[in-house]
Amino acid sequence: MEKINIVIAGPRGRMGREAVKLVQVTENYHLAAVVDHKNDGGLLSDFDGFHGLDVPIFSNIEECFQKTAANVFIDLTTPEFGMHHTKAALASGIRPVVGTTGFTKENLKELEIICKEKELGCVIAPNFAIGAVLMMKFAQLAGKYFSDVEIIELHHDEKLDAPSGTAVKTAEMIAEVRKSKKQGHLNEKETMNGARGAEFDGMHIHSVRLPGLIAHQQVMFGSAGQTLTIRHDSYNRASFMSGIKLSVDTVMNLDTLVYGLENIIE
Amino acid sequence: MEKINIVIAGPRGRMGREAVKLVQVTENYHLAAVVDHKNDGGLLSDFDGFHGLDVPIFSNIEECFQKTAANVFIDLTTPEFGMHHTKAALASGIRPVVGTTGFTKENLKELEIICKEKELGCVIAPNFAIGAVLMMKFAQLAGKYFSDVEIIELHHDEKLDAPSGTAVKTAEMIAEVRKSKKQGHLNEKETMNGARGAEFDGMHIHSVRLPGLIAHQQVMFGSAGQTLTIRHDSYNRASFMSGIKLSVDTVMNLDTLVYGLENIIE
Amino acid sequence: MEKINIVIAGPRGRMGREAVKLVQVTENYHLAAVVDHKNDGGLLSDFDGFHGLDVPIFSNIEECFQKTAANVFIDLTTPEFGMHHTKAALASGIRPVVGTTGFTKENLKELEIICKEKELGCVIAPNFAIGAVLMMKFAQLAGKYFSDVEIIELHHDEKLDAPSGTAVKTAEMIAEVRKSKKQGHLNEKETMNGARGAEFDGMHIHSVRLPGLIAHQQVMFGSAGQTLTIRHDSYNRASFMSGIKLSVDTVMNLDTLVYGLENIIE
Amino acid sequence: MEKINIVIAGPRGRMGREAVKLVQVTENYHLAAVVDHKNDGGLLSDFDGFHGLDVPIFSNIEECFQKTAANVFIDLTTPEFGMHHTKAALASGIRPVVGTTGFTKENLKELEIICKEKELGCVIAPNFAIGAVLMMKFAQLAGKYFSDVEIIELHHDEKLDAPSGTAVKTAEMIAEVRKSKKQGHLNEKETMNGARGAEFDGMHIHSVRLPGLIAHQQVMFGSAGQTLTIRHDSYNRASFMSGIKLSVDTVMNLDTLVYGLENIIE
Repeated sequence: MEKINIVIAGPRGRMGREAVKLVQVTENYHLAAVVDHKNDGGLLSDFDGFHGLDVPIFSNIEECFQKTAANVFIDLTTPEFGMHHTKAALASGIRPVVGTTGFTKENLKELEIICKEKELGCVIAPNFAIGAVLMMKFAQLAGKYFSDVEIIELHHDEKLDAPSGTAVKTAEMIAEVRKSKKQGHLNEKETMNGARGAEFDGMHIHSVRLPGLIAHQQVMFGSAGQTLTIRHDSYNRASFMSGIKLSVDTVMNLDTLVYGLENIIE
Repeated sequence: MEKINIVIAGPRGRMGREAVKLVQVTENYHLAAVVDHKNDGGLLSDFDGFHGLDVPIFSNIEECFQKTAANVFIDLTTPEFGMHHTKAALASGIRPVVGTTGFTKENLKELEIICKEKELGCVIAPNFAIGAVLMMKFAQLAGKYFSDVEIIELHHDEKLDAPSGTAVKTAEMIAEVRKSKKQGHLNEKETMNGARGAEFDGMHIHSVRLPGLIAHQQVMFGSAGQTLTIRHDSYNRASFMSGIKLSVDTVMNLDTLVYGLENIIE
Repeated sequence: MEKINIVIAGPRGRMGREAVKLVQVTENYHLAAVVDHKNDGGLLSDFDGFHGLDVPIFSNIEECFQKTAANVFIDLTTPEFGMHHTKAALASGIRPVVGTTGFTKENLKELEIICKEKELGCVIAPNFAIGAVLMMKFAQLAGKYFSDVEIIELHHDEKLDAPSGTAVKTAEMIAEVRKSKKQGHLNEKETMNGARGAEFDGMHIHSVRLPGLIAHQQVMFGSAGQTLTIRHDSYNRASFMSGIKLSVDTVMNLDTLVYGLENIIE
Repeated sequence: MEKINIVIAGPRGRMGREAVKLVQVTENYHLAAVVDHKNDGGLLSDFDGFHGLDVPIFSNIEECFQKTAANVFIDLTTPEFGMHHTKAALASGIRPVVGTTGFTKENLKELEIICKEKELGCVIAPNFAIGAVLMMKFAQLAGKYFSDVEIIELHHDEKLDAPSGTAVKTAEMIAEVRKSKKQGHLNEKETMNGARGAEFDGMHIHSVRLPGLIAHQQVMFGSAGQTLTIRHDSYNRASFMSGIKLSVDTVMNLDTLVYGLENIIE
């Protein structure tokens, strides 16, 4: 099997470290270089946790791409660099897999055109946890057949906002296909405020916060005589590795832009 | 093993039917008579669902106890009859197992004295589902060691009130032992009203309503690195049988009044 | 909305009774007649549980179809009658929705040809519980992205076989798409026989049996840092109603044979 | 509130690091010294992850106790040192909280006598996760009232043995009180070997292994119409902190030896 040469931007961040690990443990992946806003000219092995990885560090992305024969560029930096990095990769004929958010519709339109011209694949995914993406996709599919659904999301008690962004996104995705319905009994009554949770298009969302918990979500559908439950448990950042791997493998066979992991999942 | 002779009041109600079944399937139980406000002088076998049960029906409870050599009297009628029935049984030297609610403190005081004088056991239990009673008991025990707890109760969507009575009772029982604490992050913010559920002494209660569901409750405790969950699922009224059986077996060895199944569970 | 005229075969069976209820509560459905191997010439309302349903009973299915202007025929009898009933309906230009099993490949081929000639839809579904069908479909989809999966099925303790047919079917469906893999640690060791459950193509299946339980299945997928769980709880036979309704509504717009509810779910 | 002066042995191990953190974040705890088989004479702050902790390191435990005014000694080393360390602490009038295993009955007997003579409390606990200890305790309590129980334990797929030690211990604890019973249908049949899991005194134990999972156990009880489930999820080593804290607080008021966290939980 031919090796895929990979450049990673942001290797010392939390997602970046997982991506480096992924490249190390995947037989046909090879880490050709990394992009890091400081430490130009050094080696990745100079830093804690990268023992034995004698991979060159570049601060200038264009220089990196000139000096490195790469197939795929994985960007795990911050939104402010995402667009610049992605365009630079495409300009060098390298397929981008981008985990940063903040792309505008105009950005995506522009990248789509470049991909088409260059016949290069590009994957941009705000969420690389395949399990979470599948949960949302399945919830949307089930929403066609069940008009009653409640979402319970459970997080550690350091989380500030309730409900979680994933819960809201899940509800929005279900609302696209579900026949709108105010759930529960018509004369339902809360004897204590908030018991029935938040309401979104008639669905209910409940946010549980407890020390010990990490990031979990359960989507429950009910109809006469049955319930269907889809649950995702995220225990740590390693959950993003499978999504990055799927994106790298897929982008090699793509010649267009794909936004969102759910769109490379059949 | 000697047989326990049993009289059941309210045999045609939903709980009553389960009690009759219980007596039938338990080897050392014998159904001596039933008390039914109508159908005096008939046989239980005259009614649908009681095939082969040639057991006499009495409308007058005193007459029933005079004519029947009973050990235990099971009352599954309505609150308005509970006190009268219980006193009548004790007056006849028969141990009562009572599933009706509505006893006042004065009622219980009065019955306690009679039990003591007569040296007769009596069990009065508003909830005969052993699983539910154990869930509440365990939740209270765990509340001593975990200060963070959230209750999720799930019921069919015909239920009018939220939260359920059991959820509120569970929270009250935990509050008796738990060090009071406002849970969640200090700066926690609901971006959609009600997301964090109802609040009771700093604990949170969430009420899920879906068609298909029956009656379920989950009590979750969390502390650094771990969660402990206690869950009861009630699928149908047969769940009360085990509690009635435990009460009958226990009452035979009691010579005092016990209120609440949790107090005969060690 | 125009009414759909429906004939039901096997109205007094357990599934049949649910189907009758479904037709009653659905606004644009009308029960035109029923087919029952005995009770020819009578009315459905003569029988327990069908109060007010003055619907004619036919024992001869051809006669029923001649005398009744029906659009859809729902067959909930037994495998031995399935083929005959389905062909009779198609011959009369009526769309069949069939819940019996036991159709051979040859049977299906023959029915497919008839449907095509007549341009008539026909739905044959061994399982009408939409939730169960979705669970299996989702499990198969997830099996493409997760190579590690374990199935836990939970049933009442009167069930004779382990694992359940649904669990085996789920495993087979996953095996069609999953990269074959022997799961668990290579040097894994059972210190008590059977602890790791049954094995199917490297996946593990666990069968839980407890009184109180009804019919439940949980499919768990895991990869680094995350798990994805899909669970179906079946509480009673009413769970089949939504699948029958979906089939009736779909068959009206079909002009081919569809086998399996999963194939009318997009 | 008076401070409790604490000495920790094994501060650089995984449990030890959690214990150090616990002492730091607990207002009335003070870390007086640590015992470490090397690094004698140094400071804890010389090592990674202990920034600012200018606490003296002793290699000789007797010397440590002579030079340090300690109230409680926490031992998180290895079984070979447990007995020696515990006796040394008691000899110095310091109350031990010991997390090592491997104490024989003779060891415990000997320590019990010393505690009694010295009127000093001592807690030895093979498992400091309060949630796990409560799960086992609750399971045992429930086993008195439910004769049908199945244990499902779920761990990461690097685990070698199945079932887990905790699952076996739970089954043993239930067996002490449960009326022995062969569960499942009398004519139950495995169509695939191992489907019904391992058997222990008629109970069934199922071991799930999946990447992503950490350490989880679910004990399910069933009787007619209901199930009761007790579940513990352990996400990381921080779960031991609450148990160590409870032990330290309790040992200050004890004047005897207690073995097992379950025995200081009421």
